Amino acid sequence: MPASVPRHDQAQREAEALEFLHLYHTETGQPGLRQRQADLYRDGHLTLSTQELTFGARVAWRNSTRCVGRLPWQTLHVNDLRHVTAHDEVFTHLLVHLRGALNGGRILPTMSVFGPGVRIHNDQLIRYAGYRQPDGRVTGDPQNAALTDYLRGLGWRGGPGTPFDVLPLAIEAQGQVRLFDLPADATCEVRIEHPTCPAIGELGLRWHALPVISNMTLEIGGESFQAAPFNGWYLQTEIAARNLTDEHRYNLLPAVAAALGLDTRTRRSLWVDRALLELNMAVLHSFDRDGIRIADHHAVTWQFRHFETLEARAGRAVRGRWSWLLPPMAPATTPLWDRTYDDREVRPNFTAQPPAWQVARPGVCPFHH
Amino acid sequence: MPASVPRHDQAQREAEALEFLHLYHTETGQPGLRQRQADLYRDGHLTLSTQELTFGARVAWRNSTRCVGRLPWQTLHVNDLRHVTAHDEVFTHLLVHLRGALNGGRILPTMSVFGPGVRIHNDQLIRYAGYRQPDGRVTGDPQNAALTDYLRGLGWRGGPGTPFDVLPLAIEAQGQVRLFDLPADATCEVRIEHPTCPAIGELGLRWHALPVISNMTLEIGGESFQAAPFNGWYLQTEIAARNLTDEHRYNLLPAVAAALGLDTRTRRSLWVDRALLELNMAVLHSFDRDGIRIADHHAVTWQFRHFETLEARAGRAVRGRWSWLLPPMAPATTPLWDRTYDDREVRPNFTAQPPAWQVARPGVCPFHH
Ligand code: HEM
Ligand code: HEM
Repeated sequence: MPASVPRHDQAQREAEALEFLHLYHTETGQPGLRQRQADLYRDGHLTLSTQELTFGARVAWRNSTRCVGRLPWQTLHVNDLRHVTAHDEVFTHLLVHLRGALNGGRILPTMSVFGPGVRIHNDQLIRYAGYRQPDGRVTGDPQNAALTDYLRGLGWRGGPGTPFDVLPLAIEAQGQVRLFDLPADATCEVRIEHPTCPAIGELGLRWHALPVISNMTLEIGGESFQAAPFNGWYLQTEIAARNLTDEHRYNLLPAVAAALGLDTRTRRSLWVDRALLELNMAVLHSFDRDGIRIADHHAVTWQFRHFETLEARAGRAVRGRWSWLLPPMAPATTPLWDRTYDDREVRPNFTAQPPAWQVARPGVCPFHH
Repeated sequence: MPASVPRHDQAQREAEALEFLHLYHTETGQPGLRQRQADLYRDGHLTLSTQELTFGARVAWRNSTRCVGRLPWQTLHVNDLRHVTAHDEVFTHLLVHLRGALNGGRILPTMSVFGPGVRIHNDQLIRYAGYRQPDGRVTGDPQNAALTDYLRGLGWRGGPGTPFDVLPLAIEAQGQVRLFDLPADATCEVRIEHPTCPAIGELGLRWHALPVISNMTLEIGGESFQAAPFNGWYLQTEIAARNLTDEHRYNLLPAVAAALGLDTRTRRSLWVDRALLELNMAVLHSFDRDGIRIADHHAVTWQFRHFETLEARAGRAVRGRWSWLLPPMAPATTPLWDRTYDDREVRPNFTAQPPAWQVARPGVCPFHH
């Protein structure tokens, strides 16, 4: 078992297991609670059934305080791959996940849960390289510069050197880390064009259709699943108001402003705000053009309010982190602005993993040649 | 003494007084700390000198966790009017405050501290009426509907009925509440026009130049000043991204969108965001046109970072409320987005007063005919 699995103290683990069994049987109305409690007392831990795993994964989504997209939590598809522990098989199933979740653009929220010893070292399945240049600048996504360095250390030769080179996957299994190149047909991308300003299209921007988070541990009933990549669809602000625009990411607002011919001598001209708006227009337009599902910050926040209503009706409290739920564009025009949320975390849930390259990992050979 | 003065427990009051004296003498380098401590032990409370009051008011601003405009805290002008306790005099000094603070557009952050028994029942000196209509709608500013009702109850006949009627002031002094009309030359207003879209100008929007908060208690060294109205200059988002646009305020984004000819069938067209942007442009443009100082959300957030740097250099911790400091427009493009702040309150500071009409006030006659 990799060293970074949190070592639940046994009493705590059993308490979580009991709580989860209670939740599962109460919410689903399934019989058999007594039997499962007996199993737990016998084994000291839970071996989840596929139904329990699926339920637990959905509730983990429902409990994600930082996620504004929780309304369809019950629709999560869960691939129970806990028997899969070998690199090639993991990779094959990741390709199946990517294609199935894309679903021709009608994206399906999907999770694949792999077996013991598996871990994906990339934080998302699809990430663009960040190549450090001698002058200190980065070609590509600066946020991924450390990941890019790490993959090169593992033997990756590097890609063509564009700002949008998809990184290979570093899959850990059976005590070894191996690299896998993602084929182009598994990483659907969208060319970014603006509906009326061709110069924005000429910037050559693109983004991938699927956000698949692959570095969070799924925690259900005292059990931890380190390799449980999951995806929804994008919210356009994630791409257009953060990834492409943050100064420590692609930092593209100056280029967009130039394409729009804005006066950028002073921010008081609100050129930043205007470039931001047009880039958000462009991302929504381009995903819509290609028939790839994407949320907008107005619809998703109203849907979140609906989620709150449904949860209240079900007698459940919604936890939330206001600073994450609010979109980074016109937040006061959304129905979440005036709300307050209780941000305490409850289980089942997802927890962050430290990057593989920051953790001493006894028993794992990082360099496989 | 009105019932709503917080009754500091005496020990706490002396502790605050001691702490304040220490702060004052340390920061200003003034001698005489021992003497002032002796005064405190003799009287059981502090009678602040004008210098101490001024220093305390400035530090109260410096400590305001919800204020993003704190960089010039040392420039606050303080009018020491603690000897002023009669209605007419209070009103006269409020007019002096309004004219002096406006300063022909080069607004001066100013505070006027009145004597015991004085309270201003309006939450800001300049507020627009909110007239409730039989159909449940409100003409003017819906946020001020309760205040408008209250003033009518006090005998106000009502104004001409435009959406921008300036309310009279309800001044409490010597146990009585009296109404005072603000003359037009004390309430400088700005007509809102857009630099390139005349239809926005034709909406007939306006806003007043000065935000003067008049319902917060100034707390210094265990002493409370209930009538201590203060002003800075506006940040354009306060007017253009909240007051004129919130659905429970003027709710003008649909009208602005119509003036711009936007497609408002779905919010996915980002018409809300575009109307918001153009209204912010219009407010900045109009204040600039009239030479009335106003901040923009980019400059003010960079200035706040500078304030943090200066405070760190002075060896002081900056407290802040992230959700208030962040502007409601393009917040992730400002340098405050990635920061976290400690939001615990320290004294000197300002505390909120409940509206006069919500509090039983023994000894105060609210209806003066
Ligand atoms: C279906 C469409 C979905 C939308 C539109 C959506 C939207 C979002 C957004 C905007 C964020 C904030 C991202 C950021 O600022 O970095 C977020 C975070 C998150 N979401 Fe969702 N989400 C969706 C599906 C899912 C699914 C399927 C899961 C899990 C099963 C999930 C779990 C989470 C978690 C755990 C976070 C926090 C991630 C972190 O801490 O970095 N979401 N979501
Ligand atoms: C000089 C220009 C100033 C600017 C640009 C500025 C900016 C702001 C802004 C944008 C807010 C948030 C308002 C809201 O969202 O309702 C705020 C709140 C606040 N400011 Fe300032 N401010 C200035 C001057 C002052 C002064 C002179 C004082 C006191 C001496 C002050 C004390 C406060 C306080 C106490 C709050 C919180 C008000 C509340 O709780 O409702 N500010 N300021």
